Amino acid sequence: MGNSFGELFRISTFGESHGPAIGVIIDGCPAGLSIDQEFIQTELDRRRPGQSRITTQRKEEDAFRILSGVFEGKSTGTPIAIVIENTDQRSKDYSHIAGSFRPSHADYTYEAKYGIRDYRGGGRSSARETAARVAAGAVAKLLLKTQGISVTAYVSRVGEIQAPEYAALDLSRTEDNIVRCPDEETAQKMIGLIDQVRLDRDTIGGVVTCVIRNTPAGLGEPVFDKLHAELGRGMLSINAVKGFEYGSGFAGVALRGSAHNDEFYNEGGRIRTRTNRSGGIQGGISNGEDIYFNVAFKPVATIMQDQQSVDKEGNEVTVTGKGRHDPCVVPRAVPIVEAMAALVLADFLLRGKTNKL
Amino acid sequence: MGNSFGELFRISTFGESHGPAIGVIIDGCPAGLSIDQEFIQTELDRRRPGQSRITTQRKEEDAFRILSGVFEGKSTGTPIAIVIENTDQRSKDYSHIAGSFRPSHADYTYEAKYGIRDYRGGGRSSARETAARVAAGAVAKLLLKTQGISVTAYVSRVGEIQAPEYAALDLSRTEDNIVRCPDEETAQKMIGLIDQVRLDRDTIGGVVTCVIRNTPAGLGEPVFDKLHAELGRGMLSINAVKGFEYGSGFAGVALRGSAHNDEFYNEGGRIRTRTNRSGGIQGGISNGEDIYFNVAFKPVATIMQDQQSVDKEGNEVTVTGKGRHDPCVVPRAVPIVEAMAALVLADFLLRGKTNKL
Amino acid sequence: MGNSFGELFRISTFGESHGPAIGVIIDGCPAGLSIDQEFIQTELDRRRPGQSRITTQRKEEDAFRILSGVFEGKSTGTPIAIVIENTDQRSKDYSHIAGSFRPSHADYTYEAKYGIRDYRGGGRSSARETAARVAAGAVAKLLLKTQGISVTAYVSRVGEIQAPEYAALDLSRTEDNIVRCPDEETAQKMIGLIDQVRLDRDTIGGVVTCVIRNTPAGLGEPVFDKLHAELGRGMLSINAVKGFEYGSGFAGVALRGSAHNDEFYNEGGRIRTRTNRSGGIQGGISNGEDIYFNVAFKPVATIMQDQQSVDKEGNEVTVTGKGRHDPCVVPRAVPIVEAMAALVLADFLLRGKTNKL
Amino acid sequence: MGNSFGELFRISTFGESHGPAIGVIIDGCPAGLSIDQEFIQTELDRRRPGQSRITTQRKEEDAFRILSGVFEGKSTGTPIAIVIENTDQRSKDYSHIAGSFRPSHADYTYEAKYGIRDYRGGGRSSARETAARVAAGAVAKLLLKTQGISVTAYVSRVGEIQAPEYAALDLSRTEDNIVRCPDEETAQKMIGLIDQVRLDRDTIGGVVTCVIRNTPAGLGEPVFDKLHAELGRGMLSINAVKGFEYGSGFAGVALRGSAHNDEFYNEGGRIRTRTNRSGGIQGGISNGEDIYFNVAFKPVATIMQDQQSVDKEGNEVTVTGKGRHDPCVVPRAVPIVEAMAALVLADFLLRGKTNKL
Repeated sequence: MGNSFGELFRISTFGESHGPAIGVIIDGCPAGLSIDQEFIQTELDRRRPGQSRITTQRKEEDAFRILSGVFEGKSTGTPIAIVIENTDQRSKDYSHIAGSFRPSHADYTYEAKYGIRDYRGGGRSSARETAARVAAGAVAKLLLKTQGISVTAYVSRVGEIQAPEYAALDLSRTEDNIVRCPDEETAQKMIGLIDQVRLDRDTIGGVVTCVIRNTPAGLGEPVFDKLHAELGRGMLSINAVKGFEYGSGFAGVALRGSAHNDEFYNEGGRIRTRTNRSGGIQGGISNGEDIYFNVAFKPVATIMQDQQSVDKEGNEVTVTGKGRHDPCVVPRAVPIVEAMAALVLADFLLRGKTNKL
Repeated sequence: MGNSFGELFRISTFGESHGPAIGVIIDGCPAGLSIDQEFIQTELDRRRPGQSRITTQRKEEDAFRILSGVFEGKSTGTPIAIVIENTDQRSKDYSHIAGSFRPSHADYTYEAKYGIRDYRGGGRSSARETAARVAAGAVAKLLLKTQGISVTAYVSRVGEIQAPEYAALDLSRTEDNIVRCPDEETAQKMIGLIDQVRLDRDTIGGVVTCVIRNTPAGLGEPVFDKLHAELGRGMLSINAVKGFEYGSGFAGVALRGSAHNDEFYNEGGRIRTRTNRSGGIQGGISNGEDIYFNVAFKPVATIMQDQQSVDKEGNEVTVTGKGRHDPCVVPRAVPIVEAMAALVLADFLLRGKTNKL
Repeated sequence: MGNSFGELFRISTFGESHGPAIGVIIDGCPAGLSIDQEFIQTELDRRRPGQSRITTQRKEEDAFRILSGVFEGKSTGTPIAIVIENTDQRSKDYSHIAGSFRPSHADYTYEAKYGIRDYRGGGRSSARETAARVAAGAVAKLLLKTQGISVTAYVSRVGEIQAPEYAALDLSRTEDNIVRCPDEETAQKMIGLIDQVRLDRDTIGGVVTCVIRNTPAGLGEPVFDKLHAELGRGMLSINAVKGFEYGSGFAGVALRGSAHNDEFYNEGGRIRTRTNRSGGIQGGISNGEDIYFNVAFKPVATIMQDQQSVDKEGNEVTVTGKGRHDPCVVPRAVPIVEAMAALVLADFLLRGKTNKL
Repeated sequence: MGNSFGELFRISTFGESHGPAIGVIIDGCPAGLSIDQEFIQTELDRRRPGQSRITTQRKEEDAFRILSGVFEGKSTGTPIAIVIENTDQRSKDYSHIAGSFRPSHADYTYEAKYGIRDYRGGGRSSARETAARVAAGAVAKLLLKTQGISVTAYVSRVGEIQAPEYAALDLSRTEDNIVRCPDEETAQKMIGLIDQVRLDRDTIGGVVTCVIRNTPAGLGEPVFDKLHAELGRGMLSINAVKGFEYGSGFAGVALRGSAHNDEFYNEGGRIRTRTNRSGGIQGGISNGEDIYFNVAFKPVATIMQDQQSVDKEGNEVTVTGKGRHDPCVVPRAVPIVEAMAALVLADFLLRGKTNKL
């Protein structure tokens, strides 16, 4: 269990890094939505390995195929199954770790849980699994677009290098550079750092910030399924994520209530807040302001250095980094964060249809 | 929807602040568990308003009644329903906000969502709802205790005042002071700050840290229902929470992989890690080390000061703080954080029963 | 688990026959519905024991109390909790069966499953649990009424005595007699049979037929959650039910396709079928015609005669019927069947809101 | 929604009759199960069209491919995705019904629900969808086999021709004839009737009976998720099913309690019942006796005759049967009934793991 996400716009994913294919079933997409396949491919390409010098040099085509649920270009209301074949599976790269546990990977915990694991490329715990999320997220974005809702993420931090606040940025510039930071000056510093880290055969962490605009007031469910709780859950379910904060976040704890509260005012008939420390969400429900949040990614666990570890039998072993890996995961995490955010919003958009008589 | 939590150890809560009662149904508690009612009451008392000078002076008895699911002191496997009557409901206190939206409260968003709301004391969005969580969490703790698992939280920060790292603390001292910080020196500073904030008719935020010990390796589900994703969701579903991080958290993004990874070693036949930046969770699954995480709480939105806002008709109004409220929510949030953590762990404990043949 | 029903209009019930109370939480009822408490009581009274000479003479008031989710007479969108205290609990009546397994009851299977059971009055397996369903079903009926949908059941068979087809009956006459059969002549025969069975200290089975009118075309979900599959599941979840059939049912298997198919025609702009062997459902989705189905109830297992059985230790024992029980369950099952049907329809009504863009 | 089945052993299916492929994801299969691919193919072949003269002459290879979740022949605990490509899709056969509603098919209701439908071969409402169930059911059977549980179905009735009671039959003979009735004499009559019906360009209904052996006592959940309620739901979700009964079923309503009750006795330390009108289930929970039930299938709606109907615009039209269809669905329904029963049992087997401490 645990391979499905969402209540009404619900996805179920499958697939291991080095199995025949990965994929996703989307159940609950309303009928009549135009399924723009080019857009889905564009989103997959943003996540794809090998897209720039600061990402892994693995080549994955990530060509997808829709097996069901779309007829004459439109969703039919039945499940949309999307499959992506695994083509570049150099399984031999991984034989050296079949019996050993890589530090800070999921090798040991999968073994403890299941007593068996497909060790090739991390199997199910591989970040390759996120391609299925991005494909499904693209469909969610198409649904949100019909309501004018946009979901945009960018890299706001790499190591200690921090971009300005989102309100000061032009998010349309995010794709202008390979690190996906819309502030060009910060971007160049980030790229420089990642280059250095790669030369050091090491990795570095970072933060992705996401902004959701034009959400109507009223989305999100009270109590357990608060809008930010589901966003947080979605983000924390992405590989390598260690933290989530929205609105004023951790910094907000130092403020006093009088400085933190967002006063309401009437802007030409629309109720708005003058500030937005709430991050567009109050009591777990959207208030119509921008929703924004930060997602912390740890440094990638696979490093090109020797590390001490143990094998299945408990013997101490040295694990040596091999293969082609990202020195920093955040540039490629941007479309994944967007995808998960879009899935959460699409789900709440549908759930919101039955709030009132 | 949105009023249930958990898959196999599943709770459903109900109740408004000023309705007749609040309560919870626990479905899925295994049969044969000794239900220690004194323990449940103790947990409720830790959350109860009016327990010290730094919490709200509202008096709530929070006496509970078990309506089902327990026979001769033991759980029977059928739903355990727990009801807590609302006794101290000064509804008149709230008439002044019936038509106005308090800043940074859920008044406006509930109205936008449902077109109707029980405005008395915040209704369903009141923190009173968390009493039901604490009662259910107490039962979850009883279940975890049978496996030796402990869940302990404490206040690690109030405003800018920060306690030392958890590893340096003696968590058994948490209940020794009214702010629930196990470091006495820090605790006194926190209490001083909260006293000052209250005199200023203001509020302040803080952080609760939680530590879970003796979890067996293998709990948590891969992909979407990762152990930390569900912990994060549970914490973010608590009123006033703005952020969640586990293990190295947001600070971890500045580290390099070589400094961040936790190497494995063999400790007398048990596989362990030398460091624990993973926070006891790898790939979403527990590895047997301590699980620890931080939860950020914003300053309480109700302040004893005038604030600008609008009413239902969109007129600009002044909202004046009234009633008896907490200047800082974190001391009373400690048992709530523990309860949600216990509920998540209990659920995964049961879910883990079917992993292998 | 297993104590919840429905996806979007979702109920969770609790309570044992001889515990303090039984009850239900309704989660997902749209805000703004007028909650007619008199109507709820009327429905509970139809199910209540002691209402006529052919039902059990136990006295249960079944007075209910709404604890949450209703404000100023209307649903607020938050969970509606309804509690019914257990008042007439002669626990001593049941001490004789504490250690024995009554034939064709759930005593043995509960013991096998849980290793513990509240034996008083059958505990959770008592038909008393259905009072919670009827209360929730009354709210569902109120929701359906806003769409003009009606749910009406009646007794169509007792033992070998069979009423005419539903199309020949005036269903508004169902409450005119104590057996709840709208055909007076048949009703009198049924009453006579039940009187005789009671004198024989025995019990007898029967069939309840249910008719749902004015359902819009399009309700029900394809594949697994077909409208009739959920209706069937709901009915089969009622105590003592052994079978379910809709439309032509079991009799339909003897027909040829050419005699069974329902031809479509255009009735003044509305697409209709000339016959209705489909029972108002095609491919699991309502087509706008009357939905009708039959529910088979076995004879009540508690008889006022000695029966052979075994006790917990495996010793052969004689079990003697005691207490006050129904000689035939179907008259009181009518409102329960209606309640479950209403719950299924209300759920699909909400689920249908997201089918199309 | 509605394309998933099961709670812990959970399947999600996708695919239209004439799309690229159909398939299923199994989430929750315990790790370590040997996945016998030959067995899965054998099961698919039992359902496959074109297997005998009394089934449709359509040729479908139903070759499957496992995309994930199996490593070195064993389940890994991650989702098992199975895909079956659609190869024999004569889409032109269906152009004549693109705009018309076939009587007693799902054409009209899908149109009413979604406003769009893949009309080719019935799209999602095609019985082709059941191939995915059979593939998943085969995996469920492999799981049940590890516990000694067997699931066996057979044709017990075609039109008016009825086989003897199951207890008098040797179920190992079911596959000996093309109609899948283990009583050879009855089988020949059934085959004769189906031959005649096909010559008449008509169709006929039937009943499939299913027997589940060696279920441990204690499976099934009380109240809503009773074992027979889920079995019933599973069966009613199969195309063309109109009714479900278990144990004494509809015939049981005519009995008196004294004749219907199953007395317990002690058979060498094992608690058993002398009769089995309960059908192996008491209070929704298995008691260890044989579980048996009947499933009623209506005559196939597609007949080789002209029928009156309407088109999308409401015009009256004549619909002419074309293509290659089954004159009687029950022989091929046998493996489908078994598959759904196996899925229900596998789910409850896993759910039963957490009943007790």
